[in-house]
Amino acid sequence: MSIVVHKYGGTSVGTPEKIKNVAARIKKVRDLGNQVVVIVSAMGHTTDELIALMQKITPEPDPREYDMLISTGEQVSASLLAMALQSINCPAISLTGGQAGVQTEDIYRKARITHVHLERLQKELKTGKVVVITGFQGIDSKGDIITIGRGGSDTSAVAIAAALKADVCEIYTDVDGVYTTDPRIVKEARKLSFITYEEMLELASLGAQVLHLRAVECASIYGITIHLRSSEKEDQGTFIEEAKKMEKKEAVRGIALDENIAKIGVLKVPDKPGIAAKIFTALANEKINVDMIVQSIHSSGSLADMAFSVERPDLKQAVEVAKKVAKELKAENVVADDDVAKVSLVGIGMVSQPGTAAKMFETLSNEKINIQMIATSEIKISCVVKREAGKKAVQILHKAFGLDKVS
Amino acid sequence: MSIVVHKYGGTSVGTPEKIKNVAARIKKVRDLGNQVVVIVSAMGHTTDELIALMQKITPEPDPREYDMLISTGEQVSASLLAMALQSINCPAISLTGGQAGVQTEDIYRKARITHVHLERLQKELKTGKVVVITGFQGIDSKGDIITIGRGGSDTSAVAIAAALKADVCEIYTDVDGVYTTDPRIVKEARKLSFITYEEMLELASLGAQVLHLRAVECASIYGITIHLRSSEKEDQGTFIEEAKKMEKKEAVRGIALDENIAKIGVLKVPDKPGIAAKIFTALANEKINVDMIVQSIHSSGSLADMAFSVERPDLKQAVEVAKKVAKELKAENVVADDDVAKVSLVGIGMVSQPGTAAKMFETLSNEKINIQMIATSEIKISCVVKREAGKKAVQILHKAFGLDKVS
Repeated sequence: MSIVVHKYGGTSVGTPEKIKNVAARIKKVRDLGNQVVVIVSAMGHTTDELIALMQKITPEPDPREYDMLISTGEQVSASLLAMALQSINCPAISLTGGQAGVQTEDIYRKARITHVHLERLQKELKTGKVVVITGFQGIDSKGDIITIGRGGSDTSAVAIAAALKADVCEIYTDVDGVYTTDPRIVKEARKLSFITYEEMLELASLGAQVLHLRAVECASIYGITIHLRSSEKEDQGTFIEEAKKMEKKEAVRGIALDENIAKIGVLKVPDKPGIAAKIFTALANEKINVDMIVQSIHSSGSLADMAFSVERPDLKQAVEVAKKVAKELKAENVVADDDVAKVSLVGIGMVSQPGTAAKMFETLSNEKINIQMIATSEIKISCVVKREAGKKAVQILHKAFGLDKVS
Repeated sequence: MSIVVHKYGGTSVGTPEKIKNVAARIKKVRDLGNQVVVIVSAMGHTTDELIALMQKITPEPDPREYDMLISTGEQVSASLLAMALQSINCPAISLTGGQAGVQTEDIYRKARITHVHLERLQKELKTGKVVVITGFQGIDSKGDIITIGRGGSDTSAVAIAAALKADVCEIYTDVDGVYTTDPRIVKEARKLSFITYEEMLELASLGAQVLHLRAVECASIYGITIHLRSSEKEDQGTFIEEAKKMEKKEAVRGIALDENIAKIGVLKVPDKPGIAAKIFTALANEKINVDMIVQSIHSSGSLADMAFSVERPDLKQAVEVAKKVAKELKAENVVADDDVAKVSLVGIGMVSQPGTAAKMFETLSNEKINIQMIATSEIKISCVVKREAGKKAVQILHKAFGLDKVS
């Protein structure tokens, strides 16, 4: 008997009718002889409605009370789904995160799950019941209700799957998988059958809307395969899993475009140990998230140029911080530009295929797309280009690396 | 430092604005140096809305899942009230029934509270926080969420007040107290300053809409004074408490009219031991609630007449049961009438004032109101009269017993 873990997002349980559809799907899986655990999000816009109600009381709620309030949405959808299952003769029980043994850190609104106590869950499974668990929440050491960050139900599902040693955690959503790139940019974009955890994390901008990244991180730690798929169709979606399970022949697996960036350069800094630390500590103190960091060697030998990218809304503040530090460091000047976009190739196979970067640069060059910044990791190459060239870059790279062809 | 327990019903916390008003009232009480515990119902029609949503899934929900669903309403109002308190600089924390240590029987939807574990509650009170607790719910031995019957928040409040040995449990509602009779029938109806538990229970038809009767029962067991009052005004309401604390000079304290009854007579039954048992066991087996039971002596000596009243909607079924039993008992016939009303005088002082019944009958007689059935207990006299005479009976009795005069 296999243990199957399903997770359904807010859209998938958005109406009583949709809840009944989900129940019918779950019943089929159970009737095949599986033990089934289901994690649910709050129905549709429930969480937003609770927040709107809260705003009428206070704009700055106490985090503990916020969790107490916001966790009710999942309790509603979980009990309704259990009722829907029972009404089609499928034994079921709903459990809150706390009842299901989901233990978290003692931090409100964004705790991490520390442990899943399985006693109650396993007891209910043994009686043949489908166990429906409220996503996005657990309890802390005081017994307080704790939420784990917006979108956290994915992480709940993976953590519970890991604790149960389930083979797969099926995450049902309103898209049918992970694509080689955004299908709105490249119409030949292809659904990937498989992708590694690392690739999924690097493709954040493709995946963040459909999958909570902490869920991927958690799955990679515990070796849980995530099957990301549509709650409307029966088709297979994308399996997110360990590299060793996968074919590696394609060096490049996906292409991401990020138009929400801006670049800053601190130029001609006298090259001494500690200049990078000074700049990025100052930015971190202001809670400014830095993405790419590039330090190049300046022709003068005793001077360095330091370039980095930030999220576009942070540009103004980041420039102020950079100017202040530049003065201390006696840098010549600070330049900034938000008319840029970042194009990234991601693929775990790139490690063993050194020609990928060269091919990327050549492809862009052939189309007269100028590269302003380059950063590389073992499984990702990112280029900053002029903003207007971003989509074009994705399209030609998608073709050049054969992502439009079924492998 | 006193412990003060407040309970606010759904209407009193029906909107964010009303929640803020309640918070302001609570802060004043705390600022006087009291330890304050607040029990809240769900906002306005939340519970009904959850039930309507549920009906779209299934008309017959599992009781456990029903409790899981329905208990979320109080969690929303409790967290919002805690936030409202915090936003006006009044330290506060919300607790679910389970977190507050409210232990119930292992019965869904209608459990009784068995114990209140005070550890967490007292810990929070010691830090100076107002503790806001979800009414209407607790947890059972398995840690499942259990509700205690519609309107159960009053009982939650009294049970928590009893556990904390609070002097008074203040129940805030949308009426300002208990009246000598329904003010819609008698415009001179007067708010009672005090009433005993027993009187309140007997005045069920006056009080049921404003106060859960199990709360009164619980208060009488633990000697908790209930102060029933308006959440809109600062005026004192009605204190419901032990007889010994009260002046007893008024024999009659209140008059209730029940128009939702019907009477049935099983006539000329051969008088043998066990006939009453036969009739009322048969009715109980059909879950028919019997109110008044009157057995009179028949002139024949060897025959008895048995009369009783039921709730009007149960009449048809009750007659069928009565006819069946009548046949077995060889009774002559069964008569039924739903064109009746019951008028009851209630007062703990009646025990020591034997003229009350006579005065009641004479008053009705003077107005040519015919009495069809009489039943008496130590603190209540009920007469069944023609339905159209019910209101008139209440009006003349209210005047005759001086209930319109401030004592």
